Amino acid sequence: MLASKNFAPLIKDTPAEAEVISHQLLLRSGMIRKVASGIYNWLPLGFKTLKLVENIVREEMASTGSQEIFMPMVQPRDLWEDSKRWDKFGPELLRFKDRHERDFCLGPTHEEIITDLIRNNLSSYKELPLSLFQIQTKFRDEIRPRYGIMRGREFLMKDAYSFHLNQECLNNTYQTIREAYKAIFNRLGLEYKIVKADSGAIGGEISEEFHVLAESGEDTLAFSEESEIAINAELLINEKESIDSLQGKTFPDSQEEIKLAKGIEVGHIFQLGNVYSSAMNATVLDENGNRQALQMGCYGIGVSRIVAAAIEQNHDDKGIIWPKNIAPIQISILPIFKESSDKTFIFAEKLYKDLSKLGLRVMLDDRQERFGKKITESELVGSSYAVVIGKSYTENKTIELISRNGDKTELKDSEIEKFLIKAFQ
Amino acid sequence: MLASKNFAPLIKDTPAEAEVISHQLLLRSGMIRKVASGIYNWLPLGFKTLKLVENIVREEMASTGSQEIFMPMVQPRDLWEDSKRWDKFGPELLRFKDRHERDFCLGPTHEEIITDLIRNNLSSYKELPLSLFQIQTKFRDEIRPRYGIMRGREFLMKDAYSFHLNQECLNNTYQTIREAYKAIFNRLGLEYKIVKADSGAIGGEISEEFHVLAESGEDTLAFSEESEIAINAELLINEKESIDSLQGKTFPDSQEEIKLAKGIEVGHIFQLGNVYSSAMNATVLDENGNRQALQMGCYGIGVSRIVAAAIEQNHDDKGIIWPKNIAPIQISILPIFKESSDKTFIFAEKLYKDLSKLGLRVMLDDRQERFGKKITESELVGSSYAVVIGKSYTENKTIELISRNGDKTELKDSEIEKFLIKAFQ
Repeated sequence: MLASKNFAPLIKDTPAEAEVISHQLLLRSGMIRKVASGIYNWLPLGFKTLKLVENIVREEMASTGSQEIFMPMVQPRDLWEDSKRWDKFGPELLRFKDRHERDFCLGPTHEEIITDLIRNNLSSYKELPLSLFQIQTKFRDEIRPRYGIMRGREFLMKDAYSFHLNQECLNNTYQTIREAYKAIFNRLGLEYKIVKADSGAIGGEISEEFHVLAESGEDTLAFSEESEIAINAELLINEKESIDSLQGKTFPDSQEEIKLAKGIEVGHIFQLGNVYSSAMNATVLDENGNRQALQMGCYGIGVSRIVAAAIEQNHDDKGIIWPKNIAPIQISILPIFKESSDKTFIFAEKLYKDLSKLGLRVMLDDRQERFGKKITESELVGSSYAVVIGKSYTENKTIELISRNGDKTELKDSEIEKFLIKAFQ
Repeated sequence: MLASKNFAPLIKDTPAEAEVISHQLLLRSGMIRKVASGIYNWLPLGFKTLKLVENIVREEMASTGSQEIFMPMVQPRDLWEDSKRWDKFGPELLRFKDRHERDFCLGPTHEEIITDLIRNNLSSYKELPLSLFQIQTKFRDEIRPRYGIMRGREFLMKDAYSFHLNQECLNNTYQTIREAYKAIFNRLGLEYKIVKADSGAIGGEISEEFHVLAESGEDTLAFSEESEIAINAELLINEKESIDSLQGKTFPDSQEEIKLAKGIEVGHIFQLGNVYSSAMNATVLDENGNRQALQMGCYGIGVSRIVAAAIEQNHDDKGIIWPKNIAPIQISILPIFKESSDKTFIFAEKLYKDLSKLGLRVMLDDRQERFGKKITESELVGSSYAVVIGKSYTENKTIELISRNGDKTELKDSEIEKFLIKAFQ
């Protein structure tokens, strides 16, 4: 993309409405804009990252054998009556009437819809296990939306549901998807831990959360470097102790040192058992001809929330530091030029075309602006590399490469392309 | 994908609820299921086609220089008050209150949101022209939803908006996007015509519709083979004539023969002028320092509706005949076998793996079912080719290839892969 054409309205000062760093930086870098409380527009650069996250989630879910579907956002009351959640669910469930005065709600989750789909369309136990997922907009009418897209009302989620004849089969799929989640967070380039969880409004017995580690999380997690598991730090202290008192101690059941960090929940996997299938009568005849309620699992990932969590974990005082797989711009090419016939601009344009052709996400800063503005903006939006083509190129054909963590490298003009291709291999 | 794992619940008899052929076939082939009036689930095969359509639309829109964004489905009343549409828009605009009794609606279109975004974030006329698009779920509370996804309430749409300093610039972008629409419908493999249109609820002066030609369209179009333009057939007759009387005549202003076909509107492009920008005060200083209301264009494509329109245009009494670029299954491999150690199955599996690796959309029918059932189902779901690996393979290594239009070809086992790769090049 060309900087002159890219719609990314920047904000210089920290917006007063934004309490956490991801919210501040997403606004300042022109990636999101507020429409109403907890409701946002995604602008081109923010949307690009959202799509990159979505695609990683999609690929890993598909690799588990889960099939992608698309369910509606507007859901009829009768299905929520079937599951007994129409009354039970709090005011987060936004209820309304259509023009014929029929009751509907905006889906915060899709257990009712999917259980109804399966009870009406499963013809034999031989079709089990069955796993379906979607990536779709959801709505939760939070009483006090905050932290921008981290705790918004309208958000993008991946939700998957699996169906089984017995607990053993459910457990197998649960483990497979748990592994896929680990692959997802590894590909996203995020530090995370798995936390044994309370099943909350969804119900069911066994469940675990995936948390991205960051200082601004809502819960404080205690974990060791060695293990993929973390626990809520409050479980390690008694009433008189503060969480800070854990600093420097080791876990009671191991010699591993306790680390602390305020987790951001971005994934949640559940073994629901037959909570929904019994309530909604989703059954199948087993091989002995006995009618069985299906065993169900459900598996969520907060796709839009991950974008915020990635920033909470990866930023400095200059701006965002995107992990390379989700950077909307991997390479910013910054020529310093007066005329587009200048050698610096001609070289920059060639480099831009070559790298773009290879599928890299490249921004050519084709504006006649001073270097300071260009580099500041490329740091703010979290471009992984800035390629500076200025005086040293004119004088001796060398180019300065600045990585987002501040490392500077001088390269000959003939080496730059190879270097960057290798960096993103 | 493997037929044994694919979630596509078939229906044998024509569902009573379905009046038009696309609705019947989408239900029968297990591609969609109804959730509530005008609200549907997309199952794996239907969703696959939906995504293929979406990606063609996305690529062609991006090639015009339009940038992809993502706006919310839930929209606040105040913006609709600004545009004066809160009261003007009919009951198709689904209005409701959130938990704090604030008024919102479900977006049937996004002029208000985008105009608000631009009025708050455009800093100079130098950023113009600017074109933004999204592919997003919309809701219109139709009084009598019908024809399945063709006239549903919740649907997937691509909507684009462009902003300009003057009419000439608007006209340029309008023409560019008009060309992109032609490229889209050509890639989709659909016969279409362009119809001069009434701007309806969106407003503005110049507008054209893109119609897919099919017998079940809501309007009867009159057109010639030679021209890309069609007109509403009613405009060619007087009060006493029937539309049928046009049969065999020529257009009054040319010698071209009149053809008739009932269009399905799948795209609509508008030059809005300053209707929204004036009402909502979206202005910019021009180069002379004068404040100008922005000129706007808007450009819609009914992504989910295209799936239905494609079937209305392309089907026979056996099922769907997908155009090859949007077929969820391009090749069905149908081995006839008793044991998975049978030669037929081993060859089928190898072919399946080879073709899948090349990125073709292949289904291996790995079920121990009789040939009649397999071929009938592959015809129903509209697979472009069926590859029959049966007795003639065991006897003399030949394979029968049946194209969806019924052409049969005998090929040696060594030729089949090359043939199919070429067919989908």
